[in-house]
Amino acid sequence: MPSNNGIIFKAIPDGYPVIGEHIELVTREIDIENFPLADGDILVKNQYLSLDPYMRGRMRNPQIKSYVKSYEIGKALEGHVPKSYFIGLLGMPGFTAYIGLNKIGKPKEGETIFISAASGAVGQVVGQIAKIKGLRVIGSAGSDSKIKYLDELNFDGAFNYKTRNIDEELTKLCPNGIDIYFDNVGGETLDIVLSHLNDNARVVACGMISRYNDNNPHVFKNLMYIVTKRILIQGFIVLDHYQEVDSFQKEMREWLKQDKIKYKEDIVEGIQNAPEAFLNLLTGKNFGKVIVKIC
Amino acid sequence: MPSNNGIIFKAIPDGYPVIGEHIELVTREIDIENFPLADGDILVKNQYLSLDPYMRGRMRNPQIKSYVKSYEIGKALEGHVPKSYFIGLLGMPGFTAYIGLNKIGKPKEGETIFISAASGAVGQVVGQIAKIKGLRVIGSAGSDSKIKYLDELNFDGAFNYKTRNIDEELTKLCPNGIDIYFDNVGGETLDIVLSHLNDNARVVACGMISRYNDNNPHVFKNLMYIVTKRILIQGFIVLDHYQEVDSFQKEMREWLKQDKIKYKEDIVEGIQNAPEAFLNLLTGKNFGKVIVKIC
Repeated sequence: MPSNNGIIFKAIPDGYPVIGEHIELVTREIDIENFPLADGDILVKNQYLSLDPYMRGRMRNPQIKSYVKSYEIGKALEGHVPKSYFIGLLGMPGFTAYIGLNKIGKPKEGETIFISAASGAVGQVVGQIAKIKGLRVIGSAGSDSKIKYLDELNFDGAFNYKTRNIDEELTKLCPNGIDIYFDNVGGETLDIVLSHLNDNARVVACGMISRYNDNNPHVFKNLMYIVTKRILIQGFIVLDHYQEVDSFQKEMREWLKQDKIKYKEDIVEGIQNAPEAFLNLLTGKNFGKVIVKIC
Repeated sequence: MPSNNGIIFKAIPDGYPVIGEHIELVTREIDIENFPLADGDILVKNQYLSLDPYMRGRMRNPQIKSYVKSYEIGKALEGHVPKSYFIGLLGMPGFTAYIGLNKIGKPKEGETIFISAASGAVGQVVGQIAKIKGLRVIGSAGSDSKIKYLDELNFDGAFNYKTRNIDEELTKLCPNGIDIYFDNVGGETLDIVLSHLNDNARVVACGMISRYNDNNPHVFKNLMYIVTKRILIQGFIVLDHYQEVDSFQKEMREWLKQDKIKYKEDIVEGIQNAPEAFLNLLTGKNFGKVIVKIC
């Protein structure tokens, strides 16, 4: 019988998941001839597995409600599984960038946008769409090679938040302040950005990866600016917007044809390497959209 | 010559202002006959002075920019000065309630709204408009007599946040969650409310009085709900909306005629008592809209 490998959710992690303790590779056999299929069921062979930060949120106590159900202990981790670009640029992360930027950010030519985790699956798409729309685009990321990639994407400025002072960099790179902040990280970066926002600025609250594995919350100093600068902060979940996925894919394919968009993928070979790749994603060791090539 | 009393801004306070150190009553004389008036200038005699929390924000280092200019050291504190209702229900605080609730809260019949500082100049108006619009209205305030007033206004529930557990009260009084939070206080209350908000809830960021005099920020634990529950947080300044003040006053006068709105004023006699009344406002010792009757 052919083998069927899966990454099993074993226990709820408190901080970063530990391989073997919270998630584990399990090899099983699958009897394809006698697999129990109900009417309308299809048995598929996975080619690619997408790893995304939101999966950390599903490793929670099932009593805590959220927009997506928690993983079940003892069951395999679920993910999205189509052809590579359909789980990246043309899939959930690219669509997240498109919806968040257009519907919440409402970008206008000449404005300044700042993007955290700017070389990631979502951030790199946000920046390139913002460039197409004529914005000044500034990004932060966690390594010098990521910053080099942002330069290649023609960002107007980018800095390594691990080696530079965020406040000083934003002062230098955003002399006219920030109109849109596309927030993938939350925490200290969000707090510092609040002091650089212009009146009527928009914060696209896409994710807060700095908080997913950290039980010591940041002490915010600048929340009062929400009132005095009339700031909008809007969270969103891309699942709510799937009625627009066709128009998104049409526009994105057009940009791809015109060579206006690049997309960096971080491809990991073999599902046995998925647990470590997921941990690397949570600590920022990945570079671009993380995809597991299964077969 | 007639005397002219004023409250002078002496020094920038770090926490709560201290009378004599940061603000002080000064009695001067005014030569009405020879007062230098340019073309178009009018010399007015003040009858009422409005005291509002935002005035604390003007007692700042002038290098910190905000929506309203800082007070100048050595000069008198400025305030709004028309007939009593025009500085309260029909003036800035009532208009703030109307704009914040309608434009950001976007109330729908059957929804639940929670209001902090609910017996204050703004909060009491928010609650009564929300009742007119068919919402379930819950409020918090800092004394039992204030809670009794909220009962008289037909709030569906109210609690004293100083003697009760905020989380438990919200669980009990908002069994279907909260759709709109009208936030006048920020800090811990905002943090707890985030965990009670429904998906697509709106936070009207009107003020954060808990923070104005406190240099020890609250440690937020629940900000991630902004993303997962698709929460909107929107700050606003009522000055931006004055093109709608006529339609507001028309609607409010109609409600007044129909006995649908009450308004509690906390009237202080004599400008010499304004500094202490302002301190009481910042610590919640006032009850309703604070107005200084000057003559």
